[in-house]
Amino acid sequence: MTAQQKSMTTQEVANRLVSLCREGKVLDAGEELYGENIVSVEPDKSPSGTLTGKKAVREKGNQFAEMIEASHGGHISDPLVAGDHFSISWLMDITMKGQGRTKMEEICVYEVKDGKIVKEQFFY
Amino acid sequence: MTAQQKSMTTQEVANRLVSLCREGKVLDAGEELYGENIVSVEPDKSPSGTLTGKKAVREKGNQFAEMIEASHGGHISDPLVAGDHFSISWLMDITMKGQGRTKMEEICVYEVKDGKIVKEQFFY
Repeated sequence: MTAQQKSMTTQEVANRLVSLCREGKVLDAGEELYGENIVSVEPDKSPSGTLTGKKAVREKGNQFAEMIEASHGGHISDPLVAGDHFSISWLMDITMKGQGRTKMEEICVYEVKDGKIVKEQFFY
Repeated sequence: MTAQQKSMTTQEVANRLVSLCREGKVLDAGEELYGENIVSVEPDKSPSGTLTGKKAVREKGNQFAEMIEASHGGHISDPLVAGDHFSISWLMDITMKGQGRTKMEEICVYEVKDGKIVKEQFFY
């Protein structure tokens, strides 16, 4: 290892994100892999809208985690990688507090720069 | 087959798009699978911006096809499907007229409604 540490490639970031999230370490994944100015884009129909900055996105993640009463299973695909971007599919079978059991299915797209996730966008 | 034809599922639309595009029938895929009000979103950095309607998106496709001098190979992944959305990775090794040989790598995300693609977004 030289003094200048080499940034992770898009494939390496993708693999790391998938690995951590499959272990349930979704918030840890953000801490480790998000760039400071991460932009997080939800669909137009979502009240969350677009958030910028690691703190705001962490807060969104915390709020979502706190709404989950129970997780009954799910599936995170292997990543598709193309240049600076990758995508995964994410299926969740969860019970949300006060909302009952629901299946969430989404496509997630991530942009990587200098070994960090600088943008994420969710489709559902 | 009943009188009311059943719409293709997201998985079926995804498979059909990938199959046609792997055969090089990209424009045919649009004719067959796009909804009339298809919305096509390029990255902010692209001059194409966002286009709406089958005619406008077809025109963009035609213009891109006309700029290709030679195709040297490429790869279209199998689709990742989640609910009404799917994504693919698309790698192209092409020579563009007057611009030389280039490798294009992108993630493509599609939204399906009633068996048609109603929105597509490209990440590169």
